[in-house]
Amino acid sequence: MPVPLLEIPEIARLEAGQGLVRIPDQQDVPFTPRVRAIVDTAEFRRLASITQLGLVSRIYPGAMHTRFEHALGVFHNALRYLAQLSRDTRFRAAVDVHSAEVLLCAALLHDLGHWPFCHPIEDMSLAELPSHERHASEFLTPGRELAQVLESEWNVAPAEVLDVLAARTDSTPLRIVRSILSGPIDIDKMDYLERDSLHCGVPYGRNFDKNRLIQSLVLNEAGDGLALSYKGKTAAELMVFARYVMFGEVYWHHAVRSATCMFARAFYELRSGLDLHELLQHTEADVIHELRERGRGTRAEPLLEGIFGPRRRIYKRVLEATLHQNRALHDQLSRRPFEFLVRTSARFAEVLSAKLGIALSPCDILIDAPPGHREIEFKVDIFFPKEQAYRPLQEVSPVVRALAGTQFDDYVKRVRLFAAPQVARSIAAIPDLTELLAQSVLDLQPE
Amino acid sequence: MPVPLLEIPEIARLEAGQGLVRIPDQQDVPFTPRVRAIVDTAEFRRLASITQLGLVSRIYPGAMHTRFEHALGVFHNALRYLAQLSRDTRFRAAVDVHSAEVLLCAALLHDLGHWPFCHPIEDMSLAELPSHERHASEFLTPGRELAQVLESEWNVAPAEVLDVLAARTDSTPLRIVRSILSGPIDIDKMDYLERDSLHCGVPYGRNFDKNRLIQSLVLNEAGDGLALSYKGKTAAELMVFARYVMFGEVYWHHAVRSATCMFARAFYELRSGLDLHELLQHTEADVIHELRERGRGTRAEPLLEGIFGPRRRIYKRVLEATLHQNRALHDQLSRRPFEFLVRTSARFAEVLSAKLGIALSPCDILIDAPPGHREIEFKVDIFFPKEQAYRPLQEVSPVVRALAGTQFDDYVKRVRLFAAPQVARSIAAIPDLTELLAQSVLDLQPE
Amino acid sequence: MPVPLLEIPEIARLEAGQGLVRIPDQQDVPFTPRVRAIVDTAEFRRLASITQLGLVSRIYPGAMHTRFEHALGVFHNALRYLAQLSRDTRFRAAVDVHSAEVLLCAALLHDLGHWPFCHPIEDMSLAELPSHERHASEFLTPGRELAQVLESEWNVAPAEVLDVLAARTDSTPLRIVRSILSGPIDIDKMDYLERDSLHCGVPYGRNFDKNRLIQSLVLNEAGDGLALSYKGKTAAELMVFARYVMFGEVYWHHAVRSATCMFARAFYELRSGLDLHELLQHTEADVIHELRERGRGTRAEPLLEGIFGPRRRIYKRVLEATLHQNRALHDQLSRRPFEFLVRTSARFAEVLSAKLGIALSPCDILIDAPPGHREIEFKVDIFFPKEQAYRPLQEVSPVVRALAGTQFDDYVKRVRLFAAPQVARSIAAIPDLTELLAQSVLDLQPE
Amino acid sequence: MPVPLLEIPEIARLEAGQGLVRIPDQQDVPFTPRVRAIVDTAEFRRLASITQLGLVSRIYPGAMHTRFEHALGVFHNALRYLAQLSRDTRFRAAVDVHSAEVLLCAALLHDLGHWPFCHPIEDMSLAELPSHERHASEFLTPGRELAQVLESEWNVAPAEVLDVLAARTDSTPLRIVRSILSGPIDIDKMDYLERDSLHCGVPYGRNFDKNRLIQSLVLNEAGDGLALSYKGKTAAELMVFARYVMFGEVYWHHAVRSATCMFARAFYELRSGLDLHELLQHTEADVIHELRERGRGTRAEPLLEGIFGPRRRIYKRVLEATLHQNRALHDQLSRRPFEFLVRTSARFAEVLSAKLGIALSPCDILIDAPPGHREIEFKVDIFFPKEQAYRPLQEVSPVVRALAGTQFDDYVKRVRLFAAPQVARSIAAIPDLTELLAQSVLDLQPE
Repeated sequence: MPVPLLEIPEIARLEAGQGLVRIPDQQDVPFTPRVRAIVDTAEFRRLASITQLGLVSRIYPGAMHTRFEHALGVFHNALRYLAQLSRDTRFRAAVDVHSAEVLLCAALLHDLGHWPFCHPIEDMSLAELPSHERHASEFLTPGRELAQVLESEWNVAPAEVLDVLAARTDSTPLRIVRSILSGPIDIDKMDYLERDSLHCGVPYGRNFDKNRLIQSLVLNEAGDGLALSYKGKTAAELMVFARYVMFGEVYWHHAVRSATCMFARAFYELRSGLDLHELLQHTEADVIHELRERGRGTRAEPLLEGIFGPRRRIYKRVLEATLHQNRALHDQLSRRPFEFLVRTSARFAEVLSAKLGIALSPCDILIDAPPGHREIEFKVDIFFPKEQAYRPLQEVSPVVRALAGTQFDDYVKRVRLFAAPQVARSIAAIPDLTELLAQSVLDLQPE
Repeated sequence: MPVPLLEIPEIARLEAGQGLVRIPDQQDVPFTPRVRAIVDTAEFRRLASITQLGLVSRIYPGAMHTRFEHALGVFHNALRYLAQLSRDTRFRAAVDVHSAEVLLCAALLHDLGHWPFCHPIEDMSLAELPSHERHASEFLTPGRELAQVLESEWNVAPAEVLDVLAARTDSTPLRIVRSILSGPIDIDKMDYLERDSLHCGVPYGRNFDKNRLIQSLVLNEAGDGLALSYKGKTAAELMVFARYVMFGEVYWHHAVRSATCMFARAFYELRSGLDLHELLQHTEADVIHELRERGRGTRAEPLLEGIFGPRRRIYKRVLEATLHQNRALHDQLSRRPFEFLVRTSARFAEVLSAKLGIALSPCDILIDAPPGHREIEFKVDIFFPKEQAYRPLQEVSPVVRALAGTQFDDYVKRVRLFAAPQVARSIAAIPDLTELLAQSVLDLQPE
Repeated sequence: MPVPLLEIPEIARLEAGQGLVRIPDQQDVPFTPRVRAIVDTAEFRRLASITQLGLVSRIYPGAMHTRFEHALGVFHNALRYLAQLSRDTRFRAAVDVHSAEVLLCAALLHDLGHWPFCHPIEDMSLAELPSHERHASEFLTPGRELAQVLESEWNVAPAEVLDVLAARTDSTPLRIVRSILSGPIDIDKMDYLERDSLHCGVPYGRNFDKNRLIQSLVLNEAGDGLALSYKGKTAAELMVFARYVMFGEVYWHHAVRSATCMFARAFYELRSGLDLHELLQHTEADVIHELRERGRGTRAEPLLEGIFGPRRRIYKRVLEATLHQNRALHDQLSRRPFEFLVRTSARFAEVLSAKLGIALSPCDILIDAPPGHREIEFKVDIFFPKEQAYRPLQEVSPVVRALAGTQFDDYVKRVRLFAAPQVARSIAAIPDLTELLAQSVLDLQPE
Repeated sequence: MPVPLLEIPEIARLEAGQGLVRIPDQQDVPFTPRVRAIVDTAEFRRLASITQLGLVSRIYPGAMHTRFEHALGVFHNALRYLAQLSRDTRFRAAVDVHSAEVLLCAALLHDLGHWPFCHPIEDMSLAELPSHERHASEFLTPGRELAQVLESEWNVAPAEVLDVLAARTDSTPLRIVRSILSGPIDIDKMDYLERDSLHCGVPYGRNFDKNRLIQSLVLNEAGDGLALSYKGKTAAELMVFARYVMFGEVYWHHAVRSATCMFARAFYELRSGLDLHELLQHTEADVIHELRERGRGTRAEPLLEGIFGPRRRIYKRVLEATLHQNRALHDQLSRRPFEFLVRTSARFAEVLSAKLGIALSPCDILIDAPPGHREIEFKVDIFFPKEQAYRPLQEVSPVVRALAGTQFDDYVKRVRLFAAPQVARSIAAIPDLTELLAQSVLDLQPE
């Protein structure tokens, strides 16, 4: 019985070893003419000039991998997911070849709307900032090369791809396709955990038994999204845990957060003079170049030069609080607007100036705190074939339950105070630093 | 009995797990204040803006790792070599703590004289090109920050480092130290084979039993360079073989060579207008930017845009010959000056224009051939403890003997003809292409 | 400043690469004459004839590794722990060279008191069973070769080794040494998780960042046991999690438990005719041989032949309950004496015979349930250097807290009902099987 | 277009992750009911009681893996080879589903004719020894369970399997199927190199880019055997090299050979009293048991007790010669009948007794030398798609050429002299030991 999904050329070539691009670690990505046509457009090629992890490379020097490489990895996962799910009769009935090909395009293009240093910039929630979706849609404007390639080589309308990346219409196949691209066990996460781990040189994001996970993929009870059969439960726990560890050791590593806060604050300082719409279309090297030019002679200069300049000067951590170490302080500062953190650190710089008898600039002190959105993607069902029952992963895994909800964010994402290197030692030596900070918050916002 | 070498702070910290930088794959590099002082200079930081493999990333998208990361890896190897060799009484007698610390600085700084796209530029042997040594020495000019750090933090004179990188004076400890940094089993090769392999995503340059190799290190019979005890023989063979494979699959991969030829030819076209001395101090992004600017409207433009532009357009291979497939052609073109290859391809473009009835530009055809210098680094002795005898690796290993001498170069480095994509198909279809090319060589240089 | 601990010959040779034995995966175990002297005694050699995982190899065919290999791995870990802890001044003050050498002997000999199929036999809590300690002490009787080797080659009294394996006396160095050998982050667990995972061919017990864990070792606040510095927290979580996964996927895998129940029940049937004291000194092959001989013609025969005979016939799982799926049933059967489970299954066999109208033997039905002892080894402190504070791992890790206490056992160790293959299908088809089982328990033990 | 080969149930399940057995390293072997039916026969189960590497575990303690595990690995490779080759139209035309299923059975059963310590016993070329073929055929006698399973579950006649294992008839599909099971890039070698390497804990036999190798499989020019397309050339070189290294470091490791010579000599001593036909049907444990029983009180006793007894006492190497170190001696002893080596060592023991003034037993001295058959399996063709030409691997690879022919054997397989531990030191100290040995050979066989 022929399975049309398995005859999609890129899926058919998955194991053929012909016409492929090799990416770490030893992944062979099928590279048919129509894949090559997308990859060789200017719009896609741009991803080769944006690193996946931005400022992380200041701490983990190996983390120079690009969104180009990541996109190929996500595409490869898409092929494997489709090959696996094509064994499922409900999936085959719901997702036809065209929908699958739209997914393949969306997998390759899922980061099209990204820009250099995307996450720190977004976490500021600046009003001027275009949405990813609007940003992506520009690169897919009819008439641009990429739009033409999609239509002529793939018979896919750019709007179809955009509809996967950000829901506009609703249908069962679209829900399924979206849950493959974005969800608790999506092809994006499955790639970046491994890839970031590999290039950083740490073991934490690998080894979550990816093969087993893929082999367990099924549809959920409603038939409109991914679930896992029971034999993949352990692998799912491993993946959730791997993500938790990667947050603690890499993404929210204290020095990574210090560099991130420095960048965010500098960007905030310069924001009014920037043409965001244009800037965000540039390569990472160009964004750095432009920010450093703009920063020259401003308060942002030492911040930008410290992370991008010829000499690295990363701010030092002088205080750190988890929810459990200092709940009061954590609650005062978590999930507040960026602008509130800026005002608080300015106020606190005044307090410290007085206390220490030295003149601190408002940018000498940076407060880091968990942003508003939470990491909540643990909601996947586990299918028990004997009982023909679906149960939430959180219900059947104590570990996932522990990591879900507040705990993941609250342990991994901390409130931290960073200070410029030349004043860090003096500040860290202040005995009642925590109380002073708490008071500064209250000064600004009397209860 | 205390061993002073083992008390060098970075060696003492090798296993301590404190104050370290992590690089792939799971290497913990000791990061003492004086190491950090070097790494945070502008001169060293520059290595973070030069990729290790340059154009290879056009073929292997993961190969974005920098000379900065590599330098840390070589430094880590230096620590391990010293820790191992400190067990050898002859080594301890010859190499004191100061010499060892000079080696550590040299290991960190061994690529200081490199510039973006170093290898293709050097292989042209342009007269205007500064030597690595002169280039490195500029970054070590007294008064520059790096020179100051070496003197104040390490008590090492910049001239001592330069003397390791390029021999000026002679002594037994210097010979030993140089053989650690540059030789058949040096710390440089041991790092780049693994690292390039990892980031490219291929298995070939890894798994050569690095631990066994390091544990076998001894001094040679003369006591002035490295050798290996017998138990490391297999590991040495594995490493030589790994290098052979990496040349075939990565460094001289046909598409890598195509991009390399395109770059070299473009650089050659633009050379008279470039201030090499200044250009080579720039970051890789700046060099690319400047070359593309200069190339605008010249014959170099399609070459540079094809490799660096928004759309990748790499020339196609239309002919390939190893020594063994076509000795005559191979001998005609190997080890000839770059300028000769340029003239030959211009002549050949005329011939093909006539033959095909289409006007080919002189840059539509690129000839690639093995450069003058050979890969000859197989000369290491194996020490047989029972017999207390030293024998050349080549003598005791049929594999190394096979790879040494002419065969390594002659199998791995091929004569190839690349053509612009739009004409490649027509050219490849010419039945007597090889004969026409041979004739073009003769036209230029009658025997 | 010389560190005497680092001059213990086996520690000094850790990196030397000389005189070693290689065990998976690529571990080089120093093999000095005095280590070889222990290893080549009959008492130690016996460990080569006992597999590490016993019946697991019936499910994971690669799991043939022996306690001999494991002992070398634990010894290797002991060397690494000592090399690391020798950096700690408190440790150096407390543990002298002799105590360290006692630890090394104990590491090599920690399984000396084991016998084939140790865990299932112990879980029955048979009165006749010798304790490990008594069993180990026999092999260390003065006059036996091993005792002589310890005294002449190591200057260690057998009683000193026994005192580490099972506390008789108390002292600070002994507490430390015992916590290295047995505790939440001991050298035993650290070895078997990796080794079992490797030979089973699963990824779960590996990759917990062993190097980082070892590099974080410090003494606890009281100075009488192991703790971890903060930088090892993630690695500790990874290891706890790895153990959880290994229980779920290997040690308490349903088919592994089925074979284990079959073995236990057969042993129980034959117990009165066995000379346990003698039997437990035999090799695994001999124990299997003897049990099969004894079982011939008894109710134990189909059980023993099904696991050891020429044709594998493992009982089928017909019912399974975790604490959370069926708390009532779980509570009825968990942590009850083995004899109670035997009686319950006999009673239940009668009930099923009546229900199905076929004559079931009392051994056709096997009930598996968590034994009395719990897996509770999560109690290790994390040292925060900045605050100079020690906090329990459970307090600072939501994941470990989730896994500790009841949850680890209650998720991983399930109540299961196994049935002989020829009747399994009929039994599994009974709709009210769970209720019938619950009633059978009540029949025996009215509330 | 449906491909019947891909619908063979085990191939269809290759990626499905259902009903599988996991073997190292992380290989999921499809385990359909008909595979299980073969595996659960007594004839197949017997392979679980024979280790793959026999005496190697005396040197590499991890090498306890069985022929049962290996058989599953070879079967898994067979599935992957068939899945790959089913893309080749010539293969599909030549090999139908039935032939493929015969191959699958043969892959599972290829070691059926093996017995414990097969290689050392065979290398003696004893007249009484049954051939593998005859031995295998007994287990496939009609009426035995395995024969019945083949016929009823697979519709395969036992004779068909035997015909693959040892050619009786000739046809194109049979030639192809045989070249998959036995040849330079066969499924057997591809498994054991990796597996032996893994369990021994060495890196040498892994990492030869197995995926690339499988993806390059094509038919040879004649269409009756395997060849590789050009893209697999490097992987083929890596595999040939891996085998060379595994011979040097494991299979012909000096201590492995010492134990092997001890075993062979003991077996030789006892041969007349053994019922070979019966003995070779036993498990490894039983063979050891029986030999030790028989050896009691004979010259074989110290040999057998030294390798199998409670205390390991392996003979010491006192002399070693490669072809290149001592061609004369090598030529005198290589490829001679085992009986000649026995007589020579007896004669040499007399000579040494006289020289040293101590009475040596004829079994105190063992001579090891390369056996008659050579390792010659390098003959595979490489297919160059552009030129549509096939060339021998040896022609296009200098490394393979170096390893082929005499060199592989002559470097890796050495002439060695082993002596009982208690006399080894005295013998090794004799200055003209080599000359004395050479003379002993001449004494026996005047030129």
